[in-house]
Amino acid sequence: MEMTPELHGTPDVETGVGRRERKKLRTRQLISDLATEMFMERGFDHVTVAEVAKAADVAVQTVFNHFPAKEDLFFDAQDWWQGPAQAIRETPVPAAPAGGEVVDALEKHYLQGIRGRLRSGQLATWKAFARTIEESPALLARRRRNAEEMEALMVEALLERDPRVSPLLAQLLAAQYAAAQKVLEAELARLLPDSPNGVQLAHVEEALEQAVSAVFGALRHGLRL
Amino acid sequence: MEMTPELHGTPDVETGVGRRERKKLRTRQLISDLATEMFMERGFDHVTVAEVAKAADVAVQTVFNHFPAKEDLFFDAQDWWQGPAQAIRETPVPAAPAGGEVVDALEKHYLQGIRGRLRSGQLATWKAFARTIEESPALLARRRRNAEEMEALMVEALLERDPRVSPLLAQLLAAQYAAAQKVLEAELARLLPDSPNGVQLAHVEEALEQAVSAVFGALRHGLRL
Repeated sequence: MEMTPELHGTPDVETGVGRRERKKLRTRQLISDLATEMFMERGFDHVTVAEVAKAADVAVQTVFNHFPAKEDLFFDAQDWWQGPAQAIRETPVPAAPAGGEVVDALEKHYLQGIRGRLRSGQLATWKAFARTIEESPALLARRRRNAEEMEALMVEALLERDPRVSPLLAQLLAAQYAAAQKVLEAELARLLPDSPNGVQLAHVEEALEQAVSAVFGALRHGLRL
Repeated sequence: MEMTPELHGTPDVETGVGRRERKKLRTRQLISDLATEMFMERGFDHVTVAEVAKAADVAVQTVFNHFPAKEDLFFDAQDWWQGPAQAIRETPVPAAPAGGEVVDALEKHYLQGIRGRLRSGQLATWKAFARTIEESPALLARRRRNAEEMEALMVEALLERDPRVSPLLAQLLAAQYAAAQKVLEAELARLLPDSPNGVQLAHVEEALEQAVSAVFGALRHGLRL
């Protein structure tokens, strides 16, 4: 499966990307941000793509050029689904593998993603974001499809990286990574107060990093319960 | 949460259950079997409860007395969702725990359930059953709700069994058990030919038992990938 440019994060606007491309990316981000805000306020199923286009002052066709489906406007962080497979592919097979290299790489990938989200201020809207999904059958279905795609991409990457890996264990690792994601999202929701005003960000980040370490430690060494 | 009688399996008809109760249970089973057959043949969303009642030669109200929601007619094996929590509760905390007692109990519980299903002939309709779910948004939603209930019951049982267990690791174990279930279901689908005629049941059972052992071994000792 071809990897899209989004996989590598937003291109650096200082280097290598032309002015026209930069403008396109800014428009894309503006549309996605506005749409997400409207969905969180009124519910995904109660906002039309035409309303999003009007709010962003662009043509409906422009929205569809950037986002083929309405759900794409909300789930815009493709890295969340495609990143784990990429992290696996970037982990070389050592001449004498000690075992655990992939789990290490996945933990590092997860930690980077969650730190970026916390520090970019997505913390403030995290609960509203989660609630918007729970209230929309369309978003629930898309999230399920995204998770399935994430696991399929991970299995593919694991088997290509090292053909000696058992397909069953590759599938298990992908499913357990998804389970870890889910448990850590619930932990984050627990750590966040309902109103994000005055949240001790450093405290939340520290507590979450401890949870990440415990969860990936259990993936690596087993759950002796 | 109160445990329902279904948790302990169908009561033994030879002992302890009166004739009236036996008749009720037979009617219940007949309705559920007929409904499941009709759903697998025509799709869940295309069969009404009235049609099920007519096929079973009972009043619509009788169907609803046994099955409060239409989805209950299809997902009738409550043990699949409530059994893991029960298995956890039945595992005593040893004076000097070696660790792994709960994972051992869950593996044993899973193995018993899957063996029972294989030997009772549910093998023949396994793929049709899975496809019926995939094709119905209502069944997909119910399956998701059942899985969430299973995990919540497991966490509750883990924390009641041993209050020293970390809630985060209890949630992780429940989510990893659900992940293991999912991976093993996919493995079963892979082991089964499309047409179940002439399946070497013993061969499927043996291969599946090896997969169960590998999956629970990874839960217990970690995934060193």
